[in-house]
Amino acid sequence: MDKKISVGIIMGSDSDLPIMQQAAQVLDKFDIGYEINIVSAHRTPAKAHNYATTAEERGLEIIIAGAGKAAHLAGVMASLTPIPIIGVPMQTSLAGGLDSLLSIVQMPSGIPVATVAIGKTGAVNAAILAAQMLSIKFPEIRKKVISYKEGLVKSVEEKSKALENHK
Amino acid sequence: MDKKISVGIIMGSDSDLPIMQQAAQVLDKFDIGYEINIVSAHRTPAKAHNYATTAEERGLEIIIAGAGKAAHLAGVMASLTPIPIIGVPMQTSLAGGLDSLLSIVQMPSGIPVATVAIGKTGAVNAAILAAQMLSIKFPEIRKKVISYKEGLVKSVEEKSKALENHK
Amino acid sequence: MDKKISVGIIMGSDSDLPIMQQAAQVLDKFDIGYEINIVSAHRTPAKAHNYATTAEERGLEIIIAGAGKAAHLAGVMASLTPIPIIGVPMQTSLAGGLDSLLSIVQMPSGIPVATVAIGKTGAVNAAILAAQMLSIKFPEIRKKVISYKEGLVKSVEEKSKALENHK
Amino acid sequence: MDKKISVGIIMGSDSDLPIMQQAAQVLDKFDIGYEINIVSAHRTPAKAHNYATTAEERGLEIIIAGAGKAAHLAGVMASLTPIPIIGVPMQTSLAGGLDSLLSIVQMPSGIPVATVAIGKTGAVNAAILAAQMLSIKFPEIRKKVISYKEGLVKSVEEKSKALENHK
Amino acid sequence: MDKKISVGIIMGSDSDLPIMQQAAQVLDKFDIGYEINIVSAHRTPAKAHNYATTAEERGLEIIIAGAGKAAHLAGVMASLTPIPIIGVPMQTSLAGGLDSLLSIVQMPSGIPVATVAIGKTGAVNAAILAAQMLSIKFPEIRKKVISYKEGLVKSVEEKSKALENHK
Amino acid sequence: MDKKISVGIIMGSDSDLPIMQQAAQVLDKFDIGYEINIVSAHRTPAKAHNYATTAEERGLEIIIAGAGKAAHLAGVMASLTPIPIIGVPMQTSLAGGLDSLLSIVQMPSGIPVATVAIGKTGAVNAAILAAQMLSIKFPEIRKKVISYKEGLVKSVEEKSKALENHK
Amino acid sequence: MDKKISVGIIMGSDSDLPIMQQAAQVLDKFDIGYEINIVSAHRTPAKAHNYATTAEERGLEIIIAGAGKAAHLAGVMASLTPIPIIGVPMQTSLAGGLDSLLSIVQMPSGIPVATVAIGKTGAVNAAILAAQMLSIKFPEIRKKVISYKEGLVKSVEEKSKALENHK
Amino acid sequence: MDKKISVGIIMGSDSDLPIMQQAAQVLDKFDIGYEINIVSAHRTPAKAHNYATTAEERGLEIIIAGAGKAAHLAGVMASLTPIPIIGVPMQTSLAGGLDSLLSIVQMPSGIPVATVAIGKTGAVNAAILAAQMLSIKFPEIRKKVISYKEGLVKSVEEKSKALENHK
Repeated sequence: MDKKISVGIIMGSDSDLPIMQQAAQVLDKFDIGYEINIVSAHRTPAKAHNYATTAEERGLEIIIAGAGKAAHLAGVMASLTPIPIIGVPMQTSLAGGLDSLLSIVQMPSGIPVATVAIGKTGAVNAAILAAQMLSIKFPEIRKKVISYKEGLVKSVEEKSKALENHK
Repeated sequence: MDKKISVGIIMGSDSDLPIMQQAAQVLDKFDIGYEINIVSAHRTPAKAHNYATTAEERGLEIIIAGAGKAAHLAGVMASLTPIPIIGVPMQTSLAGGLDSLLSIVQMPSGIPVATVAIGKTGAVNAAILAAQMLSIKFPEIRKKVISYKEGLVKSVEEKSKALENHK
Repeated sequence: MDKKISVGIIMGSDSDLPIMQQAAQVLDKFDIGYEINIVSAHRTPAKAHNYATTAEERGLEIIIAGAGKAAHLAGVMASLTPIPIIGVPMQTSLAGGLDSLLSIVQMPSGIPVATVAIGKTGAVNAAILAAQMLSIKFPEIRKKVISYKEGLVKSVEEKSKALENHK
Repeated sequence: MDKKISVGIIMGSDSDLPIMQQAAQVLDKFDIGYEINIVSAHRTPAKAHNYATTAEERGLEIIIAGAGKAAHLAGVMASLTPIPIIGVPMQTSLAGGLDSLLSIVQMPSGIPVATVAIGKTGAVNAAILAAQMLSIKFPEIRKKVISYKEGLVKSVEEKSKALENHK
Repeated sequence: MDKKISVGIIMGSDSDLPIMQQAAQVLDKFDIGYEINIVSAHRTPAKAHNYATTAEERGLEIIIAGAGKAAHLAGVMASLTPIPIIGVPMQTSLAGGLDSLLSIVQMPSGIPVATVAIGKTGAVNAAILAAQMLSIKFPEIRKKVISYKEGLVKSVEEKSKALENHK
Repeated sequence: MDKKISVGIIMGSDSDLPIMQQAAQVLDKFDIGYEINIVSAHRTPAKAHNYATTAEERGLEIIIAGAGKAAHLAGVMASLTPIPIIGVPMQTSLAGGLDSLLSIVQMPSGIPVATVAIGKTGAVNAAILAAQMLSIKFPEIRKKVISYKEGLVKSVEEKSKALENHK
Repeated sequence: MDKKISVGIIMGSDSDLPIMQQAAQVLDKFDIGYEINIVSAHRTPAKAHNYATTAEERGLEIIIAGAGKAAHLAGVMASLTPIPIIGVPMQTSLAGGLDSLLSIVQMPSGIPVATVAIGKTGAVNAAILAAQMLSIKFPEIRKKVISYKEGLVKSVEEKSKALENHK
Repeated sequence: MDKKISVGIIMGSDSDLPIMQQAAQVLDKFDIGYEINIVSAHRTPAKAHNYATTAEERGLEIIIAGAGKAAHLAGVMASLTPIPIIGVPMQTSLAGGLDSLLSIVQMPSGIPVATVAIGKTGAVNAAILAAQMLSIKFPEIRKKVISYKEGLVKSVEEKSKALENHK
């Protein structure tokens, strides 16, 4: 009920919500508290500034930021808070999201953004990466990460067996 | 002597200076006052915020922002001031600056950046574009723009004649 | 009724109309007069030449040119008139419009085109950029630009609240 | 001495001359008359217009146009004359000339440019292609094209033998 | 009825037919005789070899070759016949046909392919380019090329007027 | 003296050492213990397997893996250990490292790699990101991260002032 | 019935099955025995390790590995077994599979992967390439390869004739 | 002394020799007989045709073909002989060899080319891949492949130890 909010999930536009909810669902599985907001680096710079500069004092440990095209949201967060930032590039029409990817990953020296894959896969992986970061401090999350990886093995095994039986 | 400062030239790193000075030299030709600063969107976010939010009241009409890689400087300016922003993508090792270009030009709906060519050419053109924008208000700058274009014709003509004579 | 025509919106093909009408709608919001035409740099070069060379005397302050693939329309305009040109790259099948973008933005030294994002977003932003350029001269347009930006904040805020309530 | 000028070689900048002279040297081999000029689509639009619209009456059969970045020179020629245009994309820092290539080859329906390889190879091949086009009318040029191709075979053979002997 | 066959249209696969028929239709407009065949550089190398080496003696003046991906058809033709070859890159899933384009245009020194735009536009333009090449020899085709270009002007004008009336 | 080894820095080849030492130097600044090894996913798969599967029990909290081209090293680590993996793409001749970047960042669902910028910048940022991750657990590292960011501000300020004085 | 299993077809995800079954169907035509499994380099690293290290002793002569995005499956196989590995890049949204292609083909010195085309074409060709490799040892497979190539000729010929008759 | 020639190494130009000799040196290590020739698909099509169609009867088991830009040499070989073809893309100025890579790897259905990495790495790996293919038939080559891979492990180990000692 009053689970600690450790992760802030933000996105540049409500059109990114179906993608970024994938991150939320994974955090639910890991039982990690999170909040979810729309914060645009470009359209709501004051809100972005406020979000980033209060993140640490509000108890956030990590921010997951999804954005597309000239995707500056993750970079803006990274410039304003010492906590780690994970960037999720949205798929776009330009080569499938190459613009989003390069805008997020090619950060200058001193201000990293931990960038994951483009789109839905990236959103899922952002949440897992957040869990891995938190697992440095929280052994119970480490256990869940290990258990999650074991689940991946089982899931692939079942599909592989279904394939062999089907043949 | 006490020429009005109309254009702010900023860049993300002092390594961009040799490129961005091209813009300054062109503004000198057009007799347009400018200031020049290093402002990093990521390393000095407070300075960037301050620069943008005071730009209009300080009398700046246009900001020219040069940056490379995940080049957010122009976008940050555009999000925080109503005056027009011109973005100059720096050349990088990633396909010659495709990262800089996409990070500057692919801005979201509502927050444009007037993007010019990559590198030195872009810096020159940013200054000319600034002159063109100012020429909407100042007829004397319009005259200089027209004269500048006539100079280009002459310069090409001379080179073409040299070529013909040389043959 | 007899609002001054300040902006010329042109496009290379009538298939670009659904995109370029986005620019017209934004100019309507800003109460800026405009005209809209189909002018092909390649198929109607005389018309293009005529359009550009008479633009200033006809009272146009800015031209917004949308074109795709080997998109030369904006460049042709820029070569023939001293007023600022804004280029809108159309989305294409080649990597989503990389051809249009590079053909517009990579202009040679001396002849800038103010390039915005690819497609619909770019058309909207071209109009806002035009308003920003005009606002150097017209304080009432500056006010509208500021108001427009405040509207963006509100719009994002409402969507963010809807998201929180929905959760 | 008073050989007919059949081919016009033009380029956007005198910096393109070392590349475009390759085309001239090949035309010399084929004993095809040519003229060589600097004509910038963007910096000298009137000259470009004049060059293209008088090309046919001046007796030019083909124009070879070399240009870089947002390379519009070949396209401008193609829009203004019925004679065939060959475009040579210059090497640039953007992915080695991808901007030049796309700006030249992706012409709209109705206005083709015969595009060849980027850089020096392209300049050589532009001249050979011009010879092939002329050989439709002039059987003696066809013979030279055939002889040129035989020369390529011999040249490769000699190098291959040198390699085998060397081994 | 027994119009001379001047142009050979070939394609690597019957799936390219809807695209390459665009070229045929344009040649029909220009009243230029052509033949149309499926010839795969890779799957039917003997046929390709035979097609190219007999092209000149069979009276072909130009070959238009459409192919996709590692598109070698145009290059194989160019290596085996002295007549000019026009290459049409097919659209593919790799960045919209970048593979086809580069495989056709980046020919080595000595063996040019006149490359046009990707896909349907390219097929139309290949036929116009063929007409332009033939017009070096045949004045009546030159007239048709000029008339075709005038038709483009009218077509754009009509659309532009429709747009103005509609407004 | 006997500082705990928290971070493993590995690289695919000794030619990557000048780049990856940048990460080591930054960790030294943060007083974070690390080890440094050459581990090739492809040439020494057993060593890679061993390195990853023993990482957690050996006390490593984070692995920083630098690799180029088909850069699988980070992904192999991520598949075999629950601790977070940071990937540094090496610069290559293919578009400046696009191959390395995509091979590292585009990981499948379930197995994230925290990817940073290409080359030297990425190596520096990988170390800072590692510090940020550790700072979730260790408040003294958080303080150093904040201090490091303040240092960035000062460094830019000094350069900006030097620029102003120099003018 | 108890045909020897010479080829192992593996894929990173069951979503790749419709593509990779193309390879199976071609092997059926060549009467080459194969097994088909889902093996993820990242999600089931132990299975991947086991698959590769037992491949030779289980009698496999060749492994065909299909994977997408940061496609490491083929590379992992190549690092762990001396038998030849064929890699099939899956189509993705990033430029149509450029990520998969580069992740598979750009292997480091010492550990090759025989890479074929992206997607369905690649899966078909992987099987033919496997037959070609086996034909070094087995003359009866060489005969089938030759016969297959003859079939390609006939198939194209029939389509070409249908086209001519249809005209 | 009179070692059987199993592998044909060919290249499109003598400028490719420093790269392709890497393949020869590796084959020497594996004690596999080879011949080396310059054969251009475009400049010497008859030689290319002859080389491919006689390859099998001359006893070649595999052809390694290196070529750049619109690199058709490997594809031409593959279309004319049933033996497996390995393609080595040369580095070029277009994005570092993306043109060579796509021209070689994106072969149509039915005619595979086993493509390896761009440049020197690719030449080395082509030879190792050839050895792996031959090892299907020749157990003594399989042993050498295994031994070669063990050598890679040792070489990396030594460099890693040198690094640790140096620290």
